[in-house]
Parts: sequence; C-alpha cells; structure tokens
Amino acid sequence: MHHVLSTDDFTREEVLYLIERAEHLRRLSRPELAVRLRGAVVATLFYEPSTRTRLSFEAAVAKLGGRVLAAENARENTSAKKGERLEDTFRVVGCYADAIVIRHHDEQEMVRAAGKSPVPIVNAGAGAGEHPTQALLDVYTLWRELGRIDGLRVCIMGDLKYGRTVHSLLKMLTYFRDIDVTLVHPDSLALPADLEAWLRERGLKMARERDMAAALRRSDAIYQTRIQTERVRSLDEVQEASAYVIRPEHLSLLQPGARILHPLPRVNEIDMEVDEDERAAYFRQAENGLYIRMALLEELLKEVVR
Amino acid sequence: MHHVLSTDDFTREEVLYLIERAEHLRRLSRPELAVRLRGAVVATLFYEPSTRTRLSFEAAVAKLGGRVLAAENARENTSAKKGERLEDTFRVVGCYADAIVIRHHDEQEMVRAAGKSPVPIVNAGAGAGEHPTQALLDVYTLWRELGRIDGLRVCIMGDLKYGRTVHSLLKMLTYFRDIDVTLVHPDSLALPADLEAWLRERGLKMARERDMAAALRRSDAIYQTRIQTERVRSLDEVQEASAYVIRPEHLSLLQPGARILHPLPRVNEIDMEVDEDERAAYFRQAENGLYIRMALLEELLKEVVR
Amino acid sequence: MHHVLSTDDFTREEVLYLIERAEHLRRLSRPELAVRLRGAVVATLFYEPSTRTRLSFEAAVAKLGGRVLAAENARENTSAKKGERLEDTFRVVGCYADAIVIRHHDEQEMVRAAGKSPVPIVNAGAGAGEHPTQALLDVYTLWRELGRIDGLRVCIMGDLKYGRTVHSLLKMLTYFRDIDVTLVHPDSLALPADLEAWLRERGLKMARERDMAAALRRSDAIYQTRIQTERVRSLDEVQEASAYVIRPEHLSLLQPGARILHPLPRVNEIDMEVDEDERAAYFRQAENGLYIRMALLEELLKEVVR
Repeated sequence: MHHVLSTDDFTREEVLYLIERAEHLRRLSRPELAVRLRGAVVATLFYEPSTRTRLSFEAAVAKLGGRVLAAENARENTSAKKGERLEDTFRVVGCYADAIVIRHHDEQEMVRAAGKSPVPIVNAGAGAGEHPTQALLDVYTLWRELGRIDGLRVCIMGDLKYGRTVHSLLKMLTYFRDIDVTLVHPDSLALPADLEAWLRERGLKMARERDMAAALRRSDAIYQTRIQTERVRSLDEVQEASAYVIRPEHLSLLQPGARILHPLPRVNEIDMEVDEDERAAYFRQAENGLYIRMALLEELLKEVVR
Repeated sequence: MHHVLSTDDFTREEVLYLIERAEHLRRLSRPELAVRLRGAVVATLFYEPSTRTRLSFEAAVAKLGGRVLAAENARENTSAKKGERLEDTFRVVGCYADAIVIRHHDEQEMVRAAGKSPVPIVNAGAGAGEHPTQALLDVYTLWRELGRIDGLRVCIMGDLKYGRTVHSLLKMLTYFRDIDVTLVHPDSLALPADLEAWLRERGLKMARERDMAAALRRSDAIYQTRIQTERVRSLDEVQEASAYVIRPEHLSLLQPGARILHPLPRVNEIDMEVDEDERAAYFRQAENGLYIRMALLEELLKEVVR
Repeated sequence: MHHVLSTDDFTREEVLYLIERAEHLRRLSRPELAVRLRGAVVATLFYEPSTRTRLSFEAAVAKLGGRVLAAENARENTSAKKGERLEDTFRVVGCYADAIVIRHHDEQEMVRAAGKSPVPIVNAGAGAGEHPTQALLDVYTLWRELGRIDGLRVCIMGDLKYGRTVHSLLKMLTYFRDIDVTLVHPDSLALPADLEAWLRERGLKMARERDMAAALRRSDAIYQTRIQTERVRSLDEVQEASAYVIRPEHLSLLQPGARILHPLPRVNEIDMEVDEDERAAYFRQAENGLYIRMALLEELLKEVVR
C-alpha cells in the first residue's frame, strides 16, 4: 500500500513509469479500458469543493470500469461536523472503498490521519499545500508536448506565493536534470522563502525575470497561473499580478515550438484569443490529467483487482 | 455532434423519431438496455438544483449502461466561483465526459459557451428560459396517452408567465397540425406578449378562456402548472393563480378519454384525490421522461459507443 | 414489496436470515458479488447529511453491481423546497429507481409517504427516530463477534435519551432471549420513559448501573455512544455524559472475550488508544454494516433482478 500525499512520494523513475503507463492507457479502446478496475471502489471525499479535480478522478475510475463513492461536500456533510477525527473517517470509508481520493483543507491533519488508513489515500489538493497529481499531469504535459523534461527552460508566471500547483510542480522538477526556471511575478507574490531555499538546495536553477517579454522569448514552456484571489490578501497583490497577462500580441515572442500551460481554471490571465494558437496546451493538459490519474489509480489498486 | 439547447433544435420529424426510439427502449429488458451506452460517460452539471431532472437523466444513463459524473451543486463548487467562464468548464469537462447535461441560470451564457464545447451540451432547464427535454417528454406523453398529437385540444392552465415548461411545450406544439390551445390563467400570469406573438406567427391557434369548467369540458389534455412562487413577484399573482386548482369535483367535467398532465413538482394545484383517476397522467409523464431522455442520449452518443 | 422503516418491520427470523445472507455475501469474490444486482438502480435521498451511512449503502449497491442515483443534499436541492410532498417525490423517484434509501428529518412524514411509494423505501435514519439498518448491523456485530445474541449481557452507555441507534438496538434486542441489559448514563440522559416502559412490556430485562467499572466487568458487550451534542440541549447534559469515557485503564476490567461496540462517529468517548485492543470491535462493526446492507438490498430487489 502506498499513499500519494506529496510530490515527495514519487521518485523520478516512478514519475516516468506513470507517464509511460498513461501513454499506454490512452492508446486503449473504451472496452479495453473498462475492465481494468472492474470490481474496485474509489471514494472521493472533497472537504474543499473542486468539481474539476473531482470529476477528473471520477472519470478516471469510471473509464477503467471501477465504481465511485462521491462526497461532493464532505466538510458539511460528514461526521467531521460531529467532531470525528479524520483518521476515523479513513478507517470507516476504508471499509467501503479500496482507495480514498481526498481534498482537505488541513494538510497536516490529512498526512497524520493517512497513517491509520487501511487503504491508499490520494491527496487531491490540500489547502495552500501540496497537489501532487497536478504536478504529475504538469510534467506529463511537458513530456508529451515537448518530447522531454530534462533540459527544459520553464517560465513560471503569476502568483508564486499562494499557487500550490506551482509549488508542487517546482518540487517535482527537481527530479529532472538541467531544468532552467525563470520566475516572473509581482514583488508581493514571490515564492515562499523556505520553499525557494529548499529548491535551490536540491539544485534547481531558478532566476527571477522582471521583463515578461524576455522570459517568453527564452522559454520552452510558460506555466501561467491564476491569482488565487481567495487566498491573496491585499488588493495591491491582485493589481500587481494582473500585469502578467498573456495576450495575442505576445504570441509572436514565443518560440515556434514553445508551449503555454495553465493548471486552470483561467480567469483573464490568458486572453481567450490565445486559445486558438496551437502552442496553447492548457486544455490538452487537462485531458492529460485524466490519463495520468488513471495510471496512478491503476498502480495503487493493482493488488485489489488482480 | 448536436447540442440540445432549445426546442428549436428539433424538427417535427426528430421529435417523432425520438418518440419512436423511446417506445422501442421501453420494450427492452434490463440486460438489453444495459449494454447500449456501455463505455460512455455523461456529466451532469447543475448550477441550479433540481434533483428530479438530474436523477431522471442519471437514471437514463445508468439504465443504458453508461457512467455518470455528477455535480449536484455546480454553482457553489465549480470553478465558476473562481471566475472561470462556462466555455472553459465545457472544454475541461468535455475532456472527461462524452456529453454534458447542464442546468444553468443564465441561458444566454450557456448557449454562447456551448459553441466552444467539444461534446454535446444538453440544456436541462435554463433559468426562466428553455427546458427542451421537458417539452419532449410532454409531447411524448400526449402521443402515448392520447394516441396522437396533431389535432389535439390542449388546455394550458396556471402560471403561463413564468412557467418555462409551458413556454417550451407551446413552442414544440407549433410543429404539429391543428392544435387547439386554450389558455386558462389569472390576468397577471398571462403568456409573455413576445412569446404569444411568436407562437401566433407560427400558426398556433390559442384562445383565452376565463371559465375553467368550460376549458376542462372541451379539452383532450389539461396541462396544469405550478405557480412558480420562487419567480412570481407579488402575493396578488399567487392568490389569483390559486383559483385554478383541479379538484375531485372537476373530474365529472372531463371527457372520458381526457388526460391531466403536470410537469411536477405539484404543490396543491391538483388535489391529491385526483391522482387515483386514470385520467391523471402526471406520474406516467414523469416516467416517460426517463425513456425520452434515454432515446435522446442514445442519439447524441451513438458515434461514441459505435 | 417491503418497506424497511422501523425495527418493527423485521421478525427475529428475518434478522437471523439477513445475518446468514450477510455471512454468505462476505465469502464471495468481487466478480461473484458484482453480478447480483446488475441492472438494479437504487436512489439515496439524504435530507439530513450523513456521508457515512450514505456511502455504506452506496458501496453495498456498487459492490453488488447495481447503480446508484445519489442526492447528497436532498433537503436543499429537491422539490421539497418548492413545496412538493414527500409522497410525490417517492412516486417520481420510484419511476427511476427500484428502491429508495432515505434519511429524512420527519419520521412520520416518511412513514406516511412510504404508503404511496411504488418501490421499497429504506429508512437510513429519521431525525431522532428510528435507524433500523443500524440496529441490524449492531446485532449482526454481536452475533459475529460473540457467536450468539440470545443470552448476552449488554451494557448500553452514554446518551440514552437522544441516541436513536440505542433506541433501535434495544427494540431489536427484544426479539432475542435472555438478554440482560445494563444501562449506564448520566441522570439527564436516561431512556425516554415511554420507550423504557414499552421495552419492559416486551420483556427486556434492564437495570441501571451507576458504577461504570461494575458494568464493564459484567458485560459481554459494551455499546458506547456519542453524546448527540446537536440534539442535547444543556451544557449540564454534555458535562455529565463526558464522565463515561472508555480509557485504556478500563481494558483490564473487561472480560477477555468481551467486545466494545460504537455506532460511530466517535468523538472522545472512547480513547483512541483503546482502538488497538482486539476487543475494540467498532471498525469491524462499520464493515459489517456494508454486508448486512448488501443482504437487505438484495432481499428487497430480488424480484427486480430475477
């Protein structure tokens, strides 16, 4: 049994293996897919709502022929309200399901409780903390769109302070070689200092760039992010961040083979006209999430459906 | 690919074809049904809650062997809250599902966004606007209960101002010949003038009748509606409308082969004692919704499961 | 057709038969289970939230190969808000599903409405009233953990006033012979007088014990309960009840073959260190709920999937 709580729960080899499995799964026909998790049951407990991520996991289970037990509003509706500890919830839901996909507001509580779970726990985004399957689909998208991960020049843009997808992605990039990261962000939304120090210690090459055009010209991949207005505290932060919008006029700056990624949802930090450019990869990125989550769930449940 | 956003998205021939398919499906056994959408995934995104309509669609998918991705509270839980445009939601959910059934409060936004959807969008009721599958099940019920649609004398009763099911049904009745519509309603809850003009232009014969008894005597079908208290603005409107309640003593006025329809939910505009009369067709009408939605989904997804 | 609204809907023989069926089902493999309710559809309508109970029922349906139509927030989202009577809801949902599992706040309304339902209604907990399937899983757990039900010495501890699981369990214990019940509770949280009178009339032997240690020493099974803080009215009641917490130091008082049960969720009325003792049966009890619900649903739906 193997929980997926953090990007640290993967090795470079495991990431590459999951990418390979995702590629395999997307070549299979619907009937071929539909038998692979037959008989398995996966619970989705969402203490913070996220229809997108939940449906992505549930689609992965459904397409592989498994069954879903869904709690769309777990925070309101579960025994948490009656004072139950999360580890008790895991023990009980673990009687019904073979794995639990959870989005929880308290990462530490989730990690601690996972220690008591009889079934694998998959972190589907924890408060301002980790979102390891998003990082998986992000590197999968880099690999799929650009043919490799090692050696890429990656520009990370927008809200680097509160954006948990950025944090998880940067951590996962430390598994790869010769990554050259350019950080483009307003002063108030820089990476947390401790994370930056940790990443540098792991050898990730990162440099801040104030000139957005220069960053766009130089990069193989631009990872644009939404300002987390629900987490950002001051209006100043929002206004500063809104300077970094990708507009149609920026497309000519991009290299012909570059790619724009975005974890979505997008508000206005990428102009919708950009969508039509083939270098806009964010909707394909969302689809990649389906396949990498299929690969992950299959890996976690392979003993169950053997 | 074919969206179902409005009653205008159907032709008379398509309506009759779907009725024929619904009749075919209801003659099949459970095992015969359960293979027809095997491997297909349908998302139900409800931005306005409606357990009845949602469960009807989800039952249709389940009975045909497909899989459902459900968002019971999409308005609260989706990225809409983070500022995402509906077209982005369609593009992302369209990566996971083969069709999207949506109840949305803003019909215009829904129609506009559907233009960007990679998969068919089915309107399951849009604010005060269209509810095309309700119109389908209504005419299916007329056909099934009365043996024909052309030539029927249909009484529409109650809240003709806000009742979207009435609007969609009247539009769909324009596809049929020699329909004779009697409108029974309080002064304040008449059909919107522009809709009435449009219907007359399309040749629908409609006349107002203030004498409820006369209308009941003359009609083949009485389509009773609930006062939309959540949309009606003044207490006067509610009180006026409450004059039009079908009571057991009205049953003797009805023709022996007449039928009472109601889109449900019913509050008190049909007395519960009326339910026992065989001419009360509203619960059979609800069941017809299941079969016509099965027929519709099968039609939309036939390429997917081919 | 057979509704399950109250523990009174079962006979002793039926309870023992369901236990036998549950034991049979738990010995089957996943593929053997997955065909038994194939083609059946079960709706779960939760007017009061309860993820635990809902997921238990939904897991039972899923593992048997049936399909679920779920309404996690039925109170907010169904036509109840528009004024629909529950019996109309049953009639409509009964067009889509072969059985309805419902948690409703108004037991009397539920029982009355069930009379009009075209499909079996299963009460999954009704306000402060009955919770018959919890009683089933409780006696199943007694039987499974202790090898018999007749003749057991059962200590019921905690909130006997508001705890509906206690009420349903005590009722069901009247079906069995020579049960010796010890009641341990604060003064303010005694059994309701009318229930106590009814149980005594049915011949259940019950005695209050103020000395918790004495009760623990004497009993084959200790059924601990949570203080229903959402129903308990005064702080005094909560404080008094908090005297009855099972702690590690109590374990030495228990008989070697005794068992501790709890309907869960647990707050702090059983110390978590107790969990590691093999006599702590409450998580196995939760799992038993899955199998006894499978047995029950299979029994209710056997005509449907024949």
